[in-house]
Amino acid sequence: MRDGLSGEGLQRKALDAVDAGLDAALARLFDYLRIPSISTDPAYEDACRAAAEWAAGTLEELGLSAAVIPTTGHPMVVARTDTGAARRVLFYGHYDVQPVDPLELWETPPFEPRFGAGADGRRTIVGRGASDDKGQVLTFLEALRAFRTAGGAPPVDITVFLEGEEECGSPSLGGFFAAEADRLKADIALVCDTGMWNPTTPSITTSLRGILSMEVTVHGPSRDLHSGLYGGAARNPIHVLADILAAARDADGRVTIPGFYDAVREMPQEVRDAWARLDLGPDEFLKPVGLSVPAGERDRMLIEQIQSRPTLEVNGIFGGYTGEGAKTIIPAKATAKISFRLVADQDPSRIAKAFEAFVRDRLPADCSVTFSGGHGSRAFLVDPASADLAHAAHALEEEWGIAPVMVGSGGSIPIVGQFKSRLGIDTLLIGFALDDDRIHSPNEKYDVTSFHKGTRSWVRILQALG
Amino acid sequence: MRDGLSGEGLQRKALDAVDAGLDAALARLFDYLRIPSISTDPAYEDACRAAAEWAAGTLEELGLSAAVIPTTGHPMVVARTDTGAARRVLFYGHYDVQPVDPLELWETPPFEPRFGAGADGRRTIVGRGASDDKGQVLTFLEALRAFRTAGGAPPVDITVFLEGEEECGSPSLGGFFAAEADRLKADIALVCDTGMWNPTTPSITTSLRGILSMEVTVHGPSRDLHSGLYGGAARNPIHVLADILAAARDADGRVTIPGFYDAVREMPQEVRDAWARLDLGPDEFLKPVGLSVPAGERDRMLIEQIQSRPTLEVNGIFGGYTGEGAKTIIPAKATAKISFRLVADQDPSRIAKAFEAFVRDRLPADCSVTFSGGHGSRAFLVDPASADLAHAAHALEEEWGIAPVMVGSGGSIPIVGQFKSRLGIDTLLIGFALDDDRIHSPNEKYDVTSFHKGTRSWVRILQALG
Repeated sequence: MRDGLSGEGLQRKALDAVDAGLDAALARLFDYLRIPSISTDPAYEDACRAAAEWAAGTLEELGLSAAVIPTTGHPMVVARTDTGAARRVLFYGHYDVQPVDPLELWETPPFEPRFGAGADGRRTIVGRGASDDKGQVLTFLEALRAFRTAGGAPPVDITVFLEGEEECGSPSLGGFFAAEADRLKADIALVCDTGMWNPTTPSITTSLRGILSMEVTVHGPSRDLHSGLYGGAARNPIHVLADILAAARDADGRVTIPGFYDAVREMPQEVRDAWARLDLGPDEFLKPVGLSVPAGERDRMLIEQIQSRPTLEVNGIFGGYTGEGAKTIIPAKATAKISFRLVADQDPSRIAKAFEAFVRDRLPADCSVTFSGGHGSRAFLVDPASADLAHAAHALEEEWGIAPVMVGSGGSIPIVGQFKSRLGIDTLLIGFALDDDRIHSPNEKYDVTSFHKGTRSWVRILQALG
Repeated sequence: MRDGLSGEGLQRKALDAVDAGLDAALARLFDYLRIPSISTDPAYEDACRAAAEWAAGTLEELGLSAAVIPTTGHPMVVARTDTGAARRVLFYGHYDVQPVDPLELWETPPFEPRFGAGADGRRTIVGRGASDDKGQVLTFLEALRAFRTAGGAPPVDITVFLEGEEECGSPSLGGFFAAEADRLKADIALVCDTGMWNPTTPSITTSLRGILSMEVTVHGPSRDLHSGLYGGAARNPIHVLADILAAARDADGRVTIPGFYDAVREMPQEVRDAWARLDLGPDEFLKPVGLSVPAGERDRMLIEQIQSRPTLEVNGIFGGYTGEGAKTIIPAKATAKISFRLVADQDPSRIAKAFEAFVRDRLPADCSVTFSGGHGSRAFLVDPASADLAHAAHALEEEWGIAPVMVGSGGSIPIVGQFKSRLGIDTLLIGFALDDDRIHSPNEKYDVTSFHKGTRSWVRILQALG
């Protein structure tokens, strides 16, 4: 059975503990950010393990029983309280981070966190993972610490589940769920990996796009050829790849892969009306990143292009000579890294097959193609009538003084689909990142306010869920 | 005045000296091949200087007065005899080599030359530069050595001119010619940087395509963006670049840049008839490199596609994430390295301008583009009635037992145009490379027979030109 403080008094004491402990909490975040846990690059395998162990050690310190569980890839961290509370909350986050290239664009080394100054003089924490997802995850852990400092505990039992492969397609997740789903049973899942509507308005993300990542390599000549001797007669794989990528989207921004839109579900008219009222335009959304013309489907609002419509993006391309100066070759191969953002009810494996067929149909007789990757996850929609959603929204409004905006996110958090299909539970996506956090880019940052008020928000939300 | 042996007797003794000295000559070639003189990469600047000094030292050893002359880039080597002969021959070659990537495809380190076994048991020399152009250049220098060993000298005075920027667009050549043309005055130029018709049939190259190299970078967002958050609405520079490259060639293999073919001169009907009789087909030309379908203009013979028709090739492409695994970004920029092969009378600077306009016309309003490079040289045609051409052809026939084939080359040797425009002299392009030499590719080789009989050929040609 539970003991100690509870209710309003506990919440007030815990919020005070968050305020008083902010500097110490930031110091812990800096420690965590110094670990270069880049999951997609095998060179950082030890760092990924170190990040998992750091997180597990912190959770033990907070009174949870924590385990670092091996997988075929990077390990999982699972920690839990067992106070006998009526309900259990599953909190998910990830300890891995994106690669740092182009390194030369970082103002300071990515794994030497520092304070910076953001827009409007906002104080920021700069470093890889500051926002995505180490800073966000620590808001939840520091909320648990605040309850402990206040001499109590949240009114719900807690399971914390951190993976280390979120940034590289979560290859071990399926196997882990198959073997260990019992460890993760809960009544509701919480994820802190999304953003605020703006620096003063919180939001809860109620839809997510799915994702499918693939790498396609076109093979032509058996070796690099001299472009003077062979140029004109020898097929150039870069041309072939460029032709295919160009053909995959039409002049109106639509993806031309046959069947691509077949399973796409239209958002309800009331959602589209609400989005129209938000009036998200290029000046607000594109201008800050140096653009001005929405590049998606011409007959869709910008907010639809990024939230409810599927996309094909080329995330990287390489082939032939890419060093200094010139080298007059026709290369043997060329590669593109592709990702699709998917919406309900698109099936990643059907889209992967459709893309493969699209490429093969356009391949000259003497070229061949290889594919790799193909990791996918479906899109996700939260039930708008959920009571937990209402409680969390109320808690956020108390902290921020303004009701949270319910939004869709264009990004993909594959775990959310797994929680639904394997554990049968809904997920509340609540995060404190900002549009200018530069996640996945050089000089990633997280606002100190996001960290501080984010931690306070979790104190209120945990109290509200209990 | 000249003294010593001359005429038939000298030639016979010199040919014997070539045969007797083959092993020692190969050892000298190996020394030369060990110098990694990659001109396009600034990291090899010292190696380029070392190669220039090695060549100058060898020329001094052969009795020429040699100088290594600084330029704004890699130095020039100029060496000469002054025996008072009636005619002077200018021999041109280059001491620089192509980069070696992809290094992992080399069976042995590129700058550790070794003997290998080629097709039909032919003995080969394997290493970067073995064929292009160190091995070819040494055939000429070893011919000079043979005359000396035989106790005589060629019946013509010799100027040897080696540059170190042939593989990177010869940026210093224009300035060098402007300042030092007097040093290079001669009656005829010889270049050993081309190939044989097949392993038993020599050839003289009587036409060369010109070249124009450019790098184009499309700039989109001001930084790399998260493709989940921005995908759909943000313009992707890789898509833009792929669209432009795809649009630059049509389904019939023609370049679509306005004006591209305006100045193209058709080859005379008799040349095209002779080419038709050579019957160069995909089985012979493309199958050895793993291809089967000619990729150029559909209404042209394969031999036209590689010799008398201009091309656009993408030599390299890069943008976004190119490391291991996946990274879901929309990159800030994407780059392609382009080269055009030009034919008479295309003007490189007009083609460069036409391409720039073509790119700008296709650029979305919120993207920008930067160009670099733009080095160009016009195509070249030899006068078929030249007496020197006839003498050289006869000498080759004596050595190989079969008359040389007069061919065009798809490759570009910019210096030839300079010899014509700045020195007013014609150039005979005679080389002993073979189609399977893998120049510009991993495991570059040169046949020992090419080296040996190439050296003997120069003894005969020098004698014939005098």
